[in-house]
Amino acid sequence: LVSIAHLSFSEIRKKLINSVDSCVDEALYGLVRASEGLSLLKGHRVVIRSDLDNLRGKVALLSGGGSGHEPAHGGYVGAGMLSAAVAGGVFASPPPASILAAILCLHNAGAAGVLLIVKNYTGDRLNFGLAAEQARNHGITVDMVIVADDCAFDRPSKAGRRGLCGTVLIHKLAGALAEEGCPLDQIVLKMTEVLKRIGTLGVGLSPCSVPGCLPSFDLPPGDMELGLGIHGEPGIKRSKVASADEVVKLMIDQMTNPDSQSHLPLKSGDSVVVCVNNLGALSCLEMGVVTRAAIICLENQGVVVARVMSGSFMTSLEMAGVSLTLVRANQETLRLFDARTTALAWPHLSNVCVTGCRYISDPPAMSTRPQDDSYSEGYILKLQVCFTLLEKQEELNSLDRAAGDGDCGNTHAQAARAIQEWLQDHRVPGCPGKLLSVLAGLVQEKMGGSSGALYSLFLTAAAGHVTEEQSSAAAWASAIHAGTEAMRRCGASACVGVLFICLWAIMCLLTKRATLGAEGTCNLTAQAGRASYIAAERLTLPDPGAVAVAATLRAVLEVLEGQK
Amino acid sequence: LVSIAHLSFSEIRKKLINSVDSCVDEALYGLVRASEGLSLLKGHRVVIRSDLDNLRGKVALLSGGGSGHEPAHGGYVGAGMLSAAVAGGVFASPPPASILAAILCLHNAGAAGVLLIVKNYTGDRLNFGLAAEQARNHGITVDMVIVADDCAFDRPSKAGRRGLCGTVLIHKLAGALAEEGCPLDQIVLKMTEVLKRIGTLGVGLSPCSVPGCLPSFDLPPGDMELGLGIHGEPGIKRSKVASADEVVKLMIDQMTNPDSQSHLPLKSGDSVVVCVNNLGALSCLEMGVVTRAAIICLENQGVVVARVMSGSFMTSLEMAGVSLTLVRANQETLRLFDARTTALAWPHLSNVCVTGCRYISDPPAMSTRPQDDSYSEGYILKLQVCFTLLEKQEELNSLDRAAGDGDCGNTHAQAARAIQEWLQDHRVPGCPGKLLSVLAGLVQEKMGGSSGALYSLFLTAAAGHVTEEQSSAAAWASAIHAGTEAMRRCGASACVGVLFICLWAIMCLLTKRATLGAEGTCNLTAQAGRASYIAAERLTLPDPGAVAVAATLRAVLEVLEGQK
Repeated sequence: LVSIAHLSFSEIRKKLINSVDSCVDEALYGLVRASEGLSLLKGHRVVIRSDLDNLRGKVALLSGGGSGHEPAHGGYVGAGMLSAAVAGGVFASPPPASILAAILCLHNAGAAGVLLIVKNYTGDRLNFGLAAEQARNHGITVDMVIVADDCAFDRPSKAGRRGLCGTVLIHKLAGALAEEGCPLDQIVLKMTEVLKRIGTLGVGLSPCSVPGCLPSFDLPPGDMELGLGIHGEPGIKRSKVASADEVVKLMIDQMTNPDSQSHLPLKSGDSVVVCVNNLGALSCLEMGVVTRAAIICLENQGVVVARVMSGSFMTSLEMAGVSLTLVRANQETLRLFDARTTALAWPHLSNVCVTGCRYISDPPAMSTRPQDDSYSEGYILKLQVCFTLLEKQEELNSLDRAAGDGDCGNTHAQAARAIQEWLQDHRVPGCPGKLLSVLAGLVQEKMGGSSGALYSLFLTAAAGHVTEEQSSAAAWASAIHAGTEAMRRCGASACVGVLFICLWAIMCLLTKRATLGAEGTCNLTAQAGRASYIAAERLTLPDPGAVAVAATLRAVLEVLEGQK
Repeated sequence: LVSIAHLSFSEIRKKLINSVDSCVDEALYGLVRASEGLSLLKGHRVVIRSDLDNLRGKVALLSGGGSGHEPAHGGYVGAGMLSAAVAGGVFASPPPASILAAILCLHNAGAAGVLLIVKNYTGDRLNFGLAAEQARNHGITVDMVIVADDCAFDRPSKAGRRGLCGTVLIHKLAGALAEEGCPLDQIVLKMTEVLKRIGTLGVGLSPCSVPGCLPSFDLPPGDMELGLGIHGEPGIKRSKVASADEVVKLMIDQMTNPDSQSHLPLKSGDSVVVCVNNLGALSCLEMGVVTRAAIICLENQGVVVARVMSGSFMTSLEMAGVSLTLVRANQETLRLFDARTTALAWPHLSNVCVTGCRYISDPPAMSTRPQDDSYSEGYILKLQVCFTLLEKQEELNSLDRAAGDGDCGNTHAQAARAIQEWLQDHRVPGCPGKLLSVLAGLVQEKMGGSSGALYSLFLTAAAGHVTEEQSSAAAWASAIHAGTEAMRRCGASACVGVLFICLWAIMCLLTKRATLGAEGTCNLTAQAGRASYIAAERLTLPDPGAVAVAATLRAVLEVLEGQK
């Protein structure tokens, strides 16, 4: 099912990019035009620094590979990282002629040798290797570093470990060395040593697909693929999707397992740079959750997290997944990692050790909780209301989805839970006004959303008008009037739908009428809130806010009637 | 179909983040731990600058809103942008108590007033408005700017235009002013003026969904939704997905249409800052294509593109879509836009006008084309081979998907097309060796991928061993041996599968055996190339590279037999 839907989506995406051939050129154009520091080499898919003069006497760095891994590698061209990057077609190694053209350009600019940084794939190794041979025939000093950072494989394979997101770290560290004026042989030596300290592992919740093509592998819904490649190659292990904490633990265990041939030796007290890499379509919210899990998992093992970068660095088209790269870091690693670069895709990062850094500030002193005084028994009523809202959660969400963002049930259930929790160590005040104040405080603090603010405003303003002595229909009517006025003053004058139902429901309550419904609100037009942006003809369902209010009051009514 | 698959994926994502409640806190933790410049306010979902001392005497900037729009707003906290950001639940406005706590913190740090930057949604307006009132009761100078940059609506609505990605630009411009020491009333005045020059429009190829919930709207496959909100609110118009050029043209036309109440006035000669914003799950490759389309569309209308930023700035969870924000810019706008900031989510940008900036470099002089000499007729053979490869494209892709990245058919078809094109203005050489050289040059230049390099290497090395005079079975055998040796020297010694079939096919050809197939390769284990990483038990299909070679040679055989 997912894979058929995926194919259909892959076809849609193909329409957007017009053609799998042209999209690479168009994307490179988009990248290069957006930055004055980058140029395209005419006739080639080569992104090259515009300020080639600054390369004179320094080692030039060239990387590249198939497209579909953006921002790699073009996004890493700039002072302090790559001098140029060669792109192939989507998931295809670039042609040796373009690699050679880039090498010649860098050489002609006066570079003191060219270092090729190549991911360990047969095609890239061959094409870059061919171009390097040809360049040497031109008398150019060229060397090559093969990045093979994949920690997926327990046993050695003839092709060796794959090159993954660790390549970006090599761009950075080698780039900083080149910028400092380090000679080619020294850079190769240092990178060869760093490569022993880099490991990467990926996990996918979905496959990816070349636009217009079938997905790279079938993944049953709810499964995740551990140890996959960045071209949609299937991984080494499948399991059920678990929480980010569990997934990250599984990944780090696999990466550092001494029984695996491709493991990264890591022990308590070691210092690491962590790269949390979005493989394409994970949301930024999910990325934050995974980043937290990575920091906590490493620190729980006694590892010092020196730096963290989190974002899209080496993608696999639209794959929903994430990879972790760890670099065991010494002082030099951190100095090179922190060095300045102008590369577009390198993020703003701080240069302070993550582990041990204070990250909680004390809040200012202020009282936000309602004061607890003069309570009487009566919490059955409240509990009943809460249960009703919790039961209605999905119904309310579904009504809200038709016109809004589908969270109406969630926010009301949140308020209900907050009230239930509050009831565990508080008594319900006997005075209706005090009860309203307590509720105002709770919904303001715990409910959030516009519903929370509206309820809070309404309840706060209404609270003063009903007391133990004064709770007639007239008193309730003036309470409702006061609430309405308060909303109007805050620019929410137009929420007539909710207010109308509120008023109507309370009138029903006071007159003990048993029929209490929100179906009548179909004829109301939302005039504020996000639902107000939806064309009226799309609204055929009752207003979800009104349904929530009605459900609340219907529950109150039922309890009161049960108490008769 | 897509929507059922989407729900099932939404459930998977819910497992990853564990709970919709906790994910917001976890993502904020992930963000704040990764940067020494940020802190969390204890007990609140507030991201605040760690260096509050630097706020003394300057205006502090506070923004925020529902979560699910990451990196907004926490990612924009830093010197030169926000002083703090308050997060609500997913797509829910933050509670006033947290907003107030943040205001008090900034005030206590010695800020010269606090500016609230609020997206125009009823909930945010209410909650920030409430907190502002409460702060004023504490004697704090507070002002509020409401961002309403949505260009979707032709007719005015009571709630006004929605706040979208333009908010990030206001963070930047107001942040730069505050950093310069500009007083609160001046910032409000300048931003009120800038707000008239900002417009945003979004387009979605898919809905989004709160993890575990149904998608925000149903979108038939192949349709796109124009003018949608950042909470998955449906848009104003649906149409078929078209190419990025057409989609961007449609968006800019809608944004600048003078007949629309919410349009951004824009004329030839105007200068703009462009923000191309990934709504969540568009791949980085697609983002590059859209960025190109935006630059070209604006320049075609005579608009000067002064700056371009492209990336994820204001997302809608995992929605596959993009929004465009345009700011009509003057010198001051650009100065503030270019000003330094330490905010994590603000990208590296160059400060040079995009339009008019040179972006093409000349390649170095070198000859990569094979030389054309001594040709004879015989191109029917080649055409036949090409047609066979083009016909086989999908079959080869599908075999390759089982073990590799599914592009084997594409790369072979690319080579076939290159040969067809070459044939239009060249004659085929009569000497087999020269023909092999020509093919080596063509596949190296046009085919790409490891297949291209392997064919090229093999053909180049083999070429010298077969001539017009010397084309016996023995000559062909030594040619194949030379090719194999060349591959071995380039580290591709292990490609026995392809070579075996190649050899076998040529033997068949020479002995005119009619049965020529690759089915036998099921028993071969790939030992290089990406397919070599796949466990042998997963391979039940023939090797796609071998099928391509066999198909090529079968076609050669058929033509030769036809010529008998």
